[in-house]
Amino acid sequence: MIVSALLTSVGINLGLFLLYVVLYSVLRKQPHNLKIYSPRLLADGKLSAEGGFAIDSLLPSPGWVRAAWAVSEDDLLASCGLDAVVFIRIFVFCLKVFSVAGAIGIFILLPINYLGDQLRDTDFSDIPNKSIDLFSISNVKDGSNRLWIHFSAAYLITGVVCYLLYSEYKFIYHKRLDLFHTSGPQPQHFTILVRGIPIEDGSSINDIVHRFFMEYHPSTYLSHIVVHRTSKLRTLITDAEKLYGRLTHLKSRSHTSENLRRSGFLGFGKKVDVVGDYSKKLEDAEENLRIAQSGVSQAGEEVPAAFVSFKSRYGAATVAHIQQSINPTLWVTEQAPDPHDVYWPFFSTSFMKRWISKLVVFVASVALIIVFLLLVTFVQGLTNLEQLEAFFPFLKSILTIAVVSQVITGYLPSLILQQLLSVVPPIMKLFSSMQGFIANSAVEKSACSKMLGFTIWNIFFANVLAGSVTSRIQIFFDPKNIPLVLAVVVPAQASFFIAYVVTSWASLSAELTRLFPLIGDWIGRHCSGSTDGVHVPSIPYHSAIPKILLFELLGLLYFLLAPLILPFLLVYFCLGYIIYRNQLLNVYLPKYETGGKFWPIVHNSTIFSLLLMQAIAIGIFALKKLPLASGLILPLPVLTLLFNEYCRKRFLPVFVAYPAESLIKKDREEQNDPEMNVFFNKLVTAYLDPALMPVRHPVTTNDQNTPLLSSA
Amino acid sequence: MIVSALLTSVGINLGLFLLYVVLYSVLRKQPHNLKIYSPRLLADGKLSAEGGFAIDSLLPSPGWVRAAWAVSEDDLLASCGLDAVVFIRIFVFCLKVFSVAGAIGIFILLPINYLGDQLRDTDFSDIPNKSIDLFSISNVKDGSNRLWIHFSAAYLITGVVCYLLYSEYKFIYHKRLDLFHTSGPQPQHFTILVRGIPIEDGSSINDIVHRFFMEYHPSTYLSHIVVHRTSKLRTLITDAEKLYGRLTHLKSRSHTSENLRRSGFLGFGKKVDVVGDYSKKLEDAEENLRIAQSGVSQAGEEVPAAFVSFKSRYGAATVAHIQQSINPTLWVTEQAPDPHDVYWPFFSTSFMKRWISKLVVFVASVALIIVFLLLVTFVQGLTNLEQLEAFFPFLKSILTIAVVSQVITGYLPSLILQQLLSVVPPIMKLFSSMQGFIANSAVEKSACSKMLGFTIWNIFFANVLAGSVTSRIQIFFDPKNIPLVLAVVVPAQASFFIAYVVTSWASLSAELTRLFPLIGDWIGRHCSGSTDGVHVPSIPYHSAIPKILLFELLGLLYFLLAPLILPFLLVYFCLGYIIYRNQLLNVYLPKYETGGKFWPIVHNSTIFSLLLMQAIAIGIFALKKLPLASGLILPLPVLTLLFNEYCRKRFLPVFVAYPAESLIKKDREEQNDPEMNVFFNKLVTAYLDPALMPVRHPVTTNDQNTPLLSSA
Repeated sequence: MIVSALLTSVGINLGLFLLYVVLYSVLRKQPHNLKIYSPRLLADGKLSAEGGFAIDSLLPSPGWVRAAWAVSEDDLLASCGLDAVVFIRIFVFCLKVFSVAGAIGIFILLPINYLGDQLRDTDFSDIPNKSIDLFSISNVKDGSNRLWIHFSAAYLITGVVCYLLYSEYKFIYHKRLDLFHTSGPQPQHFTILVRGIPIEDGSSINDIVHRFFMEYHPSTYLSHIVVHRTSKLRTLITDAEKLYGRLTHLKSRSHTSENLRRSGFLGFGKKVDVVGDYSKKLEDAEENLRIAQSGVSQAGEEVPAAFVSFKSRYGAATVAHIQQSINPTLWVTEQAPDPHDVYWPFFSTSFMKRWISKLVVFVASVALIIVFLLLVTFVQGLTNLEQLEAFFPFLKSILTIAVVSQVITGYLPSLILQQLLSVVPPIMKLFSSMQGFIANSAVEKSACSKMLGFTIWNIFFANVLAGSVTSRIQIFFDPKNIPLVLAVVVPAQASFFIAYVVTSWASLSAELTRLFPLIGDWIGRHCSGSTDGVHVPSIPYHSAIPKILLFELLGLLYFLLAPLILPFLLVYFCLGYIIYRNQLLNVYLPKYETGGKFWPIVHNSTIFSLLLMQAIAIGIFALKKLPLASGLILPLPVLTLLFNEYCRKRFLPVFVAYPAESLIKKDREEQNDPEMNVFFNKLVTAYLDPALMPVRHPVTTNDQNTPLLSSA
Repeated sequence: MIVSALLTSVGINLGLFLLYVVLYSVLRKQPHNLKIYSPRLLADGKLSAEGGFAIDSLLPSPGWVRAAWAVSEDDLLASCGLDAVVFIRIFVFCLKVFSVAGAIGIFILLPINYLGDQLRDTDFSDIPNKSIDLFSISNVKDGSNRLWIHFSAAYLITGVVCYLLYSEYKFIYHKRLDLFHTSGPQPQHFTILVRGIPIEDGSSINDIVHRFFMEYHPSTYLSHIVVHRTSKLRTLITDAEKLYGRLTHLKSRSHTSENLRRSGFLGFGKKVDVVGDYSKKLEDAEENLRIAQSGVSQAGEEVPAAFVSFKSRYGAATVAHIQQSINPTLWVTEQAPDPHDVYWPFFSTSFMKRWISKLVVFVASVALIIVFLLLVTFVQGLTNLEQLEAFFPFLKSILTIAVVSQVITGYLPSLILQQLLSVVPPIMKLFSSMQGFIANSAVEKSACSKMLGFTIWNIFFANVLAGSVTSRIQIFFDPKNIPLVLAVVVPAQASFFIAYVVTSWASLSAELTRLFPLIGDWIGRHCSGSTDGVHVPSIPYHSAIPKILLFELLGLLYFLLAPLILPFLLVYFCLGYIIYRNQLLNVYLPKYETGGKFWPIVHNSTIFSLLLMQAIAIGIFALKKLPLASGLILPLPVLTLLFNEYCRKRFLPVFVAYPAESLIKKDREEQNDPEMNVFFNKLVTAYLDPALMPVRHPVTTNDQNTPLLSSA
């Protein structure tokens, strides 16, 4: 790619980005779009969808940027939870890292690269037609002493990143503990989940659980709820909800048509019949459901799993952490998740089944990665005009036009890649949910790790390693040569990744404008006439975090090789910081609170990026005929791994379980609190399967938001 | 190696073995050798060293074999502990495995190999001059369908080994739990070790520990003992003990000279002076020691570590398993070892120091392996006569004699190897003791793992992989080709390993005759005239177990390749079974009881052997041009790993910690036992550093055995 192609790409994407932002700042002010752009505030009752038309609502304004910027971290914590803060801290962390890296890269490494004369005739004119490679390390002369500056930069950036990682980990570790210390009593801290309850003839699981805990933990045991197999019930509930949705829709239409549109599609008399019809059906469905519920909760269908609650946090923690049974596959305990966070469909799996499904999911994930690789191979071909012409000979005439060819090489491949990528997170989430996790948060955390592996492999490795699927995998069977191979292929793809970063600006703004929900809502309103009420989404961490971490990986790798990428990355992180703050405050409602458990993933991924950077540095100094530098880089990965190991020991345990000190302190604080009795009374039923709760579909109500919100 | 050379080697070793055994059966009956061959019984008072000379004590007799055979496993458990039973079960397990493997190998695989015609002209005469390779898989024709029998054998033996592993693991798991359930209250179950106690100004560690446990665990906390830095004290004690040893020696000599030998080296008058001199010195030393002890126990020199005892097993276990402090590097808890098993010198190491020393030890172990590799390379050269002649040209004329060359190729290399190997276990134990383990048993367990790695690498890999150190290591950087490379080189070394197994018979009998202690005792008695009292050794599991596991590895690998090794292995395991039973009953006194914690090492090593066998099978079928079989072996390692994973989940947790069910049951049984108060009173001082105990060196006593036994 030459400089002018890069500039074209920057131009297109900047234009698209600005277009989106202007669109957003206009659209967000339209009252009927509030449920797209501020569903959270609307649901909280802080905004109302009513309001007339005003001329200034058609003028773009940057007020939302100021609002997003102004919110303090404490406010963010209060309104969105620690997970959101951690998410935003990823941007802050990357901004800090790449400010330092950018300063070194642009003001020191880039000039040195450009002044090298490995690749070019030494004239400074006509920069637009120069290859971007002139700004990369490839242009430094082999064996030049200037490479020692790159060498120092590798050490410097590793030091900076490790220091920032440490302080960030420490910060989140303290936040996590603070959150625990300041929060009131929460069911998940008093409750554990027991699986693998041994079934005895003649006793119900209910009795077995009661007997076991009364025998071994009589002083702390409070109550328990045995889990039931409720998949059938859930189907019935979904059916009832569908009926209810259709009914409220019909009613609202009759309501609107009375007020606004006198002529509906249906006559008035007929409409009443339809409503009555649906009311009847709904009543039948609910009756069926009630019968089924009482059947399930009284008789069999018990699953050998139970939520067991204790009188103190420490009591629950001891039972969760000590192996209970002589047979370690029975009475398997773990800390329970938040009651809202429980992933109910998981419960049908036994110890062996969960274990096998883990294996199946692993194989399926690998298969997905390989299938995707074939797609990426094709997309990658688009960057080569010659290959493209070979594929589609009829394009030959069009491709000779300069602009078209620049658009295609600079923009199209990354666009296709990004679209393909958007299909993967739901699949990965599905895989994770099959693994037997007990909480939605655990499913998303696992999906996040899977997506990270997928992203790094399929976006990074698949693009830098040329050739067929097998030839790509083969370099990992030859570990000795990995640094050398990477040092050859990674710099070669610098221009692709610069283009990829630039394209991502537009995708960030697409996050802002929420085009798909907007179009969906528009179609809903204008075609079927339905106004579905406010749907408040939760932020999909499992697809958002790996994306950011990929950019961090790219930044760290190309810092040494092609520092030209850094300013574009800085722009990305700045935009992301503002946009996601805005979205977290206005759009997303947190579905769960893991207390910052996503940070260890970020930490590990950053360590991986550093190690890869160092491996490539070893390779590149060897290639550049400076073997001494190549050898002297070797202590760096060792030090990085030691640093990582220290962080694992120093911070990670608190992200796995709370320490006894905190648990006992909290227990003691509340010992004489009269409100604890109220809490314990609630705790007894906190983990009741929602499918077994009485159904409340008030047929007479007109409030359409409540049921949807409560199920969100 | 040809068959006749093998037979020579068998002859030599069988002869040596029988010689040793005859020697043993005579020597063991001499009264003055009782302290070499039955020190345990002597120390227990079951035998006395007195007794006259009888003529039949000069005749060899096999009575000891019958005695060793007759002892039941329960008796062995009662007298030697579970670790000894586990040790003997390794032999039993190997005997079971190789009975099956031997039957298949000798009666099915060996004839098939011999009837193949890849290597030879088909005549059945002159077997002694045939190469051993004719009995190996190399002789089967490429692509022959007979290889499918080898293929089935690979599946069959994997199934047999896994079944036996499972039942063995289950057996030891039950034994371990039974031992716990039937044993009385033991200090280690009620006590934990806390390290990383935060130091505050103005408070002693004693106070800090007391305050912490009184605050967080008031209901279960019993007492604690802070650890002191006692290395100086230990030096003083050693000095005092040396003085005491010399004194008792002098006294015994005066005693003996009065009774038996009237003329000593020294006159009577002078002798009294020496004794008085030493008594004076000893008294001074003990006085110094007492002053130093009171200084250490009262004032500073406290180490931020303490043994904390609890009122119940479950109380101790909860504290041990739950992270105590907000900072995970402080208040680090773990279950305490048996008071006799505490490795006192460890306590000077902090969290960071322990961590760094672990790293240093890892590097040192790897360095040791590499240094040793150079030695092995040399030894390996001895099997090639040509190479030997090149090294030592002057040997040329001797080497032409057939017997000499056969001895050298068949016997010498393995003898040198075994002698070199005997130096390594102490070094590995030293390394392990530097790692900061708190118990002797943990040090030996870690040394056992290290030795296993060392043995497998330096005896197996170093011998099969030819070439320089770097070229040997390089095959692990090319994992794809490992099966193929191994399939080429492993069969080629079959004769070396058969010779190695045969040589080991003699080394087993050396274990029986205990030549070094015998000679040491003989020199002591006849030259310096000292009779040092009975020294009861403990069995060095860390050097004995890896040796057996190496033979298991060889057996499993060569089962497919060269089944000729199997009968020799079976002989080895039979002899080992008898000899070690005898030694455990008569010689070794268990120093500690881990409750079978060595078994997981055996299990993992067997799984590794299976995987290696399967990898080589993949390679050999590929080499033999039967790619379908090579591919169909692939599910086997996957299944083996799954089996291993299942065992890890099913059995391993109990080897790490006892389950709550057992702990609480035991606690409850003893709740109203009046003897528990006595136990708790003892528990308070159970973990006092022996260096701080009052010194008892009764200058007037003549009983020489007591002090040495009590310190053993």
